[in-house]
Amino acid sequence: MKNFRSDNEAPVNPVILAAIQNANQGFSESYGYDQWSLQLNERFQQLFECWCEVLPLTTGTAANSIATALMAPPYGAVYCHPQAHILVDECGAPGFFSGGAGLIPVAGADGKIDANTLTETLRNSGHHGEHELLPSAISITQCSEAGTVYSLAELKAIKAIADKHDLALHMDGARFANALVSQNISPAQATWQAGVDLMSLGATKNGAMMAEALIIFNPKFNKEIRRWRKRSGHLVSKMRFISAQLLAYLDNDLWLQLARHANQQAADFAEGVSQKAELLYPVSANEVFCRLPITKIEQLEQHGYLFHRWPGTKDVIRLVFSHATTPEATQQLINATIK
Amino acid sequence: MKNFRSDNEAPVNPVILAAIQNANQGFSESYGYDQWSLQLNERFQQLFECWCEVLPLTTGTAANSIATALMAPPYGAVYCHPQAHILVDECGAPGFFSGGAGLIPVAGADGKIDANTLTETLRNSGHHGEHELLPSAISITQCSEAGTVYSLAELKAIKAIADKHDLALHMDGARFANALVSQNISPAQATWQAGVDLMSLGATKNGAMMAEALIIFNPKFNKEIRRWRKRSGHLVSKMRFISAQLLAYLDNDLWLQLARHANQQAADFAEGVSQKAELLYPVSANEVFCRLPITKIEQLEQHGYLFHRWPGTKDVIRLVFSHATTPEATQQLINATIK
Amino acid sequence: MKNFRSDNEAPVNPVILAAIQNANQGFSESYGYDQWSLQLNERFQQLFECWCEVLPLTTGTAANSIATALMAPPYGAVYCHPQAHILVDECGAPGFFSGGAGLIPVAGADGKIDANTLTETLRNSGHHGEHELLPSAISITQCSEAGTVYSLAELKAIKAIADKHDLALHMDGARFANALVSQNISPAQATWQAGVDLMSLGATKNGAMMAEALIIFNPKFNKEIRRWRKRSGHLVSKMRFISAQLLAYLDNDLWLQLARHANQQAADFAEGVSQKAELLYPVSANEVFCRLPITKIEQLEQHGYLFHRWPGTKDVIRLVFSHATTPEATQQLINATIK
Amino acid sequence: MKNFRSDNEAPVNPVILAAIQNANQGFSESYGYDQWSLQLNERFQQLFECWCEVLPLTTGTAANSIATALMAPPYGAVYCHPQAHILVDECGAPGFFSGGAGLIPVAGADGKIDANTLTETLRNSGHHGEHELLPSAISITQCSEAGTVYSLAELKAIKAIADKHDLALHMDGARFANALVSQNISPAQATWQAGVDLMSLGATKNGAMMAEALIIFNPKFNKEIRRWRKRSGHLVSKMRFISAQLLAYLDNDLWLQLARHANQQAADFAEGVSQKAELLYPVSANEVFCRLPITKIEQLEQHGYLFHRWPGTKDVIRLVFSHATTPEATQQLINATIK
Repeated sequence: MKNFRSDNEAPVNPVILAAIQNANQGFSESYGYDQWSLQLNERFQQLFECWCEVLPLTTGTAANSIATALMAPPYGAVYCHPQAHILVDECGAPGFFSGGAGLIPVAGADGKIDANTLTETLRNSGHHGEHELLPSAISITQCSEAGTVYSLAELKAIKAIADKHDLALHMDGARFANALVSQNISPAQATWQAGVDLMSLGATKNGAMMAEALIIFNPKFNKEIRRWRKRSGHLVSKMRFISAQLLAYLDNDLWLQLARHANQQAADFAEGVSQKAELLYPVSANEVFCRLPITKIEQLEQHGYLFHRWPGTKDVIRLVFSHATTPEATQQLINATIK
Repeated sequence: MKNFRSDNEAPVNPVILAAIQNANQGFSESYGYDQWSLQLNERFQQLFECWCEVLPLTTGTAANSIATALMAPPYGAVYCHPQAHILVDECGAPGFFSGGAGLIPVAGADGKIDANTLTETLRNSGHHGEHELLPSAISITQCSEAGTVYSLAELKAIKAIADKHDLALHMDGARFANALVSQNISPAQATWQAGVDLMSLGATKNGAMMAEALIIFNPKFNKEIRRWRKRSGHLVSKMRFISAQLLAYLDNDLWLQLARHANQQAADFAEGVSQKAELLYPVSANEVFCRLPITKIEQLEQHGYLFHRWPGTKDVIRLVFSHATTPEATQQLINATIK
Repeated sequence: MKNFRSDNEAPVNPVILAAIQNANQGFSESYGYDQWSLQLNERFQQLFECWCEVLPLTTGTAANSIATALMAPPYGAVYCHPQAHILVDECGAPGFFSGGAGLIPVAGADGKIDANTLTETLRNSGHHGEHELLPSAISITQCSEAGTVYSLAELKAIKAIADKHDLALHMDGARFANALVSQNISPAQATWQAGVDLMSLGATKNGAMMAEALIIFNPKFNKEIRRWRKRSGHLVSKMRFISAQLLAYLDNDLWLQLARHANQQAADFAEGVSQKAELLYPVSANEVFCRLPITKIEQLEQHGYLFHRWPGTKDVIRLVFSHATTPEATQQLINATIK
Repeated sequence: MKNFRSDNEAPVNPVILAAIQNANQGFSESYGYDQWSLQLNERFQQLFECWCEVLPLTTGTAANSIATALMAPPYGAVYCHPQAHILVDECGAPGFFSGGAGLIPVAGADGKIDANTLTETLRNSGHHGEHELLPSAISITQCSEAGTVYSLAELKAIKAIADKHDLALHMDGARFANALVSQNISPAQATWQAGVDLMSLGATKNGAMMAEALIIFNPKFNKEIRRWRKRSGHLVSKMRFISAQLLAYLDNDLWLQLARHANQQAADFAEGVSQKAELLYPVSANEVFCRLPITKIEQLEQHGYLFHRWPGTKDVIRLVFSHATTPEATQQLINATIK
């Protein structure tokens, strides 16, 4: 196992695959009225210790884009990091769903929006009336695209800015489980208690087959979400097979176990290579960005290791560790890297 | 088994479920570069005996809507039957994807566009220049929403109109397999040889878990289809699990067997109740619309039978027979209906 | 003067042209902060005897389309007559502005929505949840595209249906002045007192150069209308020249005088030809649709008369009388028609 | 006359106003089939010494946004300067018209895209397939938003990049006349001979009432432009009054005279204050950005001078000189500034 390219390339966890099989019991209501889907709201409300509304989906792009359409009018602006998936990796989907809302990049170190930069950006916004987009929302990625994690203090600072400017706060939680176990806090603390209004929760990268969810914490944004899903073609008829994945993902803290395992592999690797490789960002979750001699990168490739050479750089690679990465594979990679 | 409400409520066929499990072999490329997805074009080209491009998707609405965006500009008009799924059952998705194209209803008996009415509609279109939508495409559903099937002669008549007005021809094949076995013709004859430019091919209703495909026969419409998929949130990362379904669906003619079975149940039911119930449309595939005394409808409901009372009527019900409907279940329904 | 093709082809009334010249006094604030534009709200509030918000625009399509976007979400349905300008003459603009809302035709005699048909249409809507568009608004044209006028009783019946289904009521008042003088009621009675939530008020056809206005009576729809205008490119920088037209249009009841004149010409023509021509609709305003022998139609054309042969008919023509149609021209047309 | 806030606040030039009056001769064809509108293509073809197609409009935002929709698909990217009007001053209109295309800022000194930065930006684009927007076009503003002018050499460098990456080249010519007289080259040299595919030509700021035009030089982009205009509500019925402005604007080189006058005022001011004020950019056209002591800025304001304090700065103001700025007014402003 030499694949460190993406957790999207990992297989489905056997427990989740079994849940899919178990859901294949005869006929069942379609379009979300099955017994699995009908459990979701209650299950997530227990988990997050609050009211919430859950919309099961098959992709994170769908979750992020419906979230954007709920938060931002067609003439709205959403502030995000320059590396944000919604800005650079979704082929304009948030603009498409929202009818033309703009994504405004706000820089910051370690893949995270800097609160001061955000304050400054907003200070220079909104003085030009209808000529400008209406500041509408902030979207943060947790874990960030740099594999880092916003601390609660950082979230609090951003939330204060959101409140001051009456902006919605969205969390792209494609790797939320990895962030959660990294911080050792509760789902509630990590989201609505920190002021998150809506979250895209990913399960696919962390062991599911295709299962994501848009979770609405603030009822203000709970508006015709089922119609948004349908009109974007995301209402899966046999939804039980999505919902069953989400339930199995949460049961017995499977999601946390899987994320903890993935994070541990990344931590072990970071520690193992720390003398030989420059780590670009703090390693808080399951991704490691490191600078290596080009000859070393080429050597690893020749030995069959799979990873991303990072665009815009010559000697930086991204390594992603997953629920299915074995400790042996991690150790082999360490050895190959440092020898 | 008393569920005749929709083939969407049927379980996944075991062969297809096994194919999903078999695809869960370790790590694999994501986003369609896995070994299953990479087979699709060749597999469908063999099947259809022509060049074609296949875009695997999870819903028929996505396939129909991307097809609309490919065929019709934002200022285009698409002609369809008043009962067409794209017009009445997709919450405006085709208008959303295309950026505002209009769907123009063209009536016809038995759920099928009438060629003369279409000719008349087009005769009165296009004289008002830019004030009007640009006639762009025709979309037919095969099998139709009335469970009927366009004959090759009917298709030919519509294609001639399409050619005369330079319109694309799209087939919504949510139940294409059922139409195919009904007509006993080849996939090629039923589609591109009859002039179909693009088809939404459904597998979900006929035994898959969630697997549909947009198939482009006319290279003119093969334009950035992967970007259309991505920006609408339909690029599933672990695509191997969709593609494996499609491959298993076709292997050993499974799709035809399943459809033949479903159609047979419908035919048996139609014959069995013909003395007691008025059939609204010819029964050519796996759906039966019949008029029954209201007391009989209520009695069936009380006995636990599930079906749709048809909107806009008082005494018409729709019964759908599926790959998983047993002959015994069909016979029991016949008995319950005629006794 | 033999032009009866459209009131859009008539010249600008001299009083309005003079108002444009008078507005050309040195420098003035742009984008609607000039002294003319700043008067509009108060001027229209006096006229309509109520709170209202006025958005000056250059075209009726812009007014109708922004109105649609304000009333209907992207997944909304707007009910209108099959002949409605928004449905058949705006190249899909309402669908574009709203992000994909659907326009649902509701038939009725004399170019007016029939209340019973509307009731029936709505009875069959809304049972299919997210699969369907959300019923959102009704749009009526006053005068209608057939040159007829909804009576207050007819408006009341439609408003009752709107209230029952929680639908917004929009009036396309491209020829509102003609309707008003036809009914001899006040602007208030004709609009908000009859339940109209938003109106597109046209001045261009009735003597202005290019001046229309979206008028919001119901504050519920007064949401970021200036941003809607800007992002559709309709924020004219030197807006004083639009607003000055609107003010002159209303001053000294000019608009009513002009409309009364136009209506009188139509009435005179209708009476003058009544023995020789079949009138298709009651003549209530400034348009006459009449059936004539084809030889007569051709003869009129040969004599240089300009009018529309009505699409979809062989022997029906539309004649439009305007503020600039002289009584002599009308009499000559009568003579030419009946001789 | 103390208004240096914007050329949008200047009055209409008397010659152009007279042309409007002269166009008010009785009835005339509507929607662009009048004698004035029908002259436009030929008139502009003479002017630009090439084939071109002209679409008269009332706002520059409309011209820019239709241009964007013609150049970029909904999944396309358009590269522009961070200060570009289309990016920061049009409330998202280009994203709206195009259905979600992204505007990518590319920095550069003096309000102009830097060719090296553009090369670098494009080098890092396009490696991520469908996850990314498709590089589609470059939009430059001439004169730029900083009042500077791209030299022919600068245009050539950008065009070379456009060609290399198969990108369309759009020029936002809201103040094109000012750029032209600044460079002393022909309209042909300044546009299509420099590789411009489409241009938004403004007349409003330079003496018209409301008259802009989208000019298509490359027939590849001449696709259903009238439908784009109609569906965005920009088809003015009495178009003769727009077209007459454009004709008068060009006749006898009026546009060049007016622009030359405005530029001269700016040059005189820049020279007059050069010892006392820091000029932020080279003064090439009719705008001056200068840094002054805050007390001086306040003093000018107290004396009734109107100008923009530049957002994001404390002591920078923008002064715009227009066709209607008198030399006396300019001299007074110089005196007030330097004393």
